[in-house]
Amino acid sequence: MRILLDGMGGDHAPLEIVKGAVEAAKEITHTIVIIGDQKKIEAELKKYKYDKKQILIEHASDVIDNCDAPVKAVRTKKESSMVKGITMVKEGKGDLFISAGNSGALMAGSLLILGRIQGIDRPAMASIYPILGGQASLLVDAGANAECKPDNLLEFATMGSIYMEKVLGRKNPKVGIVNIGAEETKGTTVTKAAHELLLKSSLNFVGNVEAREIPFGASDVIVCDGFVGNVVLKLTEGMALSVLKKLKETLTAGLKAKLGTVLLYDKIKGLKSEFDYSEYGGAPILGVKGPIVKMHGASNSNAVKNTILKGIPYAEQNVVQTILDSVLELEEIKISE
Amino acid sequence: MRILLDGMGGDHAPLEIVKGAVEAAKEITHTIVIIGDQKKIEAELKKYKYDKKQILIEHASDVIDNCDAPVKAVRTKKESSMVKGITMVKEGKGDLFISAGNSGALMAGSLLILGRIQGIDRPAMASIYPILGGQASLLVDAGANAECKPDNLLEFATMGSIYMEKVLGRKNPKVGIVNIGAEETKGTTVTKAAHELLLKSSLNFVGNVEAREIPFGASDVIVCDGFVGNVVLKLTEGMALSVLKKLKETLTAGLKAKLGTVLLYDKIKGLKSEFDYSEYGGAPILGVKGPIVKMHGASNSNAVKNTILKGIPYAEQNVVQTILDSVLELEEIKISE
Repeated sequence: MRILLDGMGGDHAPLEIVKGAVEAAKEITHTIVIIGDQKKIEAELKKYKYDKKQILIEHASDVIDNCDAPVKAVRTKKESSMVKGITMVKEGKGDLFISAGNSGALMAGSLLILGRIQGIDRPAMASIYPILGGQASLLVDAGANAECKPDNLLEFATMGSIYMEKVLGRKNPKVGIVNIGAEETKGTTVTKAAHELLLKSSLNFVGNVEAREIPFGASDVIVCDGFVGNVVLKLTEGMALSVLKKLKETLTAGLKAKLGTVLLYDKIKGLKSEFDYSEYGGAPILGVKGPIVKMHGASNSNAVKNTILKGIPYAEQNVVQTILDSVLELEEIKISE
Repeated sequence: MRILLDGMGGDHAPLEIVKGAVEAAKEITHTIVIIGDQKKIEAELKKYKYDKKQILIEHASDVIDNCDAPVKAVRTKKESSMVKGITMVKEGKGDLFISAGNSGALMAGSLLILGRIQGIDRPAMASIYPILGGQASLLVDAGANAECKPDNLLEFATMGSIYMEKVLGRKNPKVGIVNIGAEETKGTTVTKAAHELLLKSSLNFVGNVEAREIPFGASDVIVCDGFVGNVVLKLTEGMALSVLKKLKETLTAGLKAKLGTVLLYDKIKGLKSEFDYSEYGGAPILGVKGPIVKMHGASNSNAVKNTILKGIPYAEQNVVQTILDSVLELEEIKISE
């Protein structure tokens, strides 16, 4: 298998990207192709010992940055590392493409170059949602589609369920819709209609999930529109940061507290790592004709390594084909409305 | 001033309601009228020493419970403590009504009995949003209107701003819209149009606020539709509970940690209280012709006491009249679209 890595995307590219690739390569036998400015990537690679047959460079002379308008960037920056990477997946020159670059451009590029899986109206970005002391959930859509129709939520639920089972190994995953009450009658016209569609599906649908239950792992797959998904992810991140900041201030004010904190040092560090997105791998784009994974823009080498290692099953487990196979059932449910 | 209290609403009524009223009465000179089953309330009051001229009972033979359909309950249960309380505000027999009962019924009753302030299309529920180590924000709408138009968000911003200034004493409060990006062009058709409306207003509008910034007090007034507002509030509550639970587990596993935790006991307890909704008072209903405040259904006596004490300015500061006075400016902005 050939894993394609955008060497130029993200806040710490190419330094952390290359370092992460070298670290990941030690744990796998697959080939990693880093796409980007040959000289810059070579300069970074020189810092490490690595197998030159396992880590290759594919030169790309241009870069899509975060200020670029997504569609325009994809159409005009043909020589960018991102466009090259997606195109290589389409041409069978790679099995998986990972980028920490411009999210909008990665979604636009996936749509324009690979195309949607027929029958999927709206591809989505899925995101691992960490559960303290428990197994992570998968949140779909994590922000790609701010406004959705009920059919789209059904698609997100189906694709999320397949990814959860195939890639994260959770059998018959529980699927819930984010809503403002547990009752069927609660919510917007969209969530109510989506609830009815999901009841007709063969998914393991557990109904509405209130936001309060999300951090406790209320369902394996958490379905919502991209606006709500973005709010859920960002607020969780903000709360975790805010609580840890407060905890640090609290636990170091006063001598007695300082002493207590010294005794607890390892525990608090462990708690912090449970919130650390870099442990959880990236966010797959679901519903396009090829495995594309988005990494956090601020990814450090550890995040890069984990995204590579945890992204491999997206390609190996034929997720794209399985989604394609599920479309017939989706069509029947949609038409029955 | 006469404060009307629903003696029968909430999970711990009338026990905690009466206890909270007695505790609040000690700190104020206003009269508190507890509305509900005379015998039950008398039985609770007998447990305490209190000024019989300051705490009165208004008998109500019926109760609206959480299973009741809101509008039907308001229309048919005329003798319920909730309907009586709202009616007493309308008739000038009380200056403020506080209830821990059925939220939907309290909103429906406020609309049907008191009516909307003319020019306010959608009354909203506002909620205090605690900021760790900082001044609380006010979230509007906290869940009353799942689907909103841009005009509604402008109304929420205006009413929230008035409440923040008059009741919580924050001068020229900063107003932000919850959105999935800081840029004007981000979001849904509704948030984009609301952004334009708010730019035309005389409010201290600071633009879009990403959910990640909410726990850090990004704006004094946080504006969003009721679906997003409910998600923000409930997720914050869930995250706080989840982190504290994990913290407790972490800090008591192993002897060294236990010892450290003993030294930190006071600090951790203090941290917990910062998350405690019962410290922050209730949620005002804004946009109806009278001051109505919703308490958390699980309110204990401390929450009841704080809601009474912190609710008084809603009546004293003429918030309803100020909202009425602001409607003209609102109409001009709406028409200019």
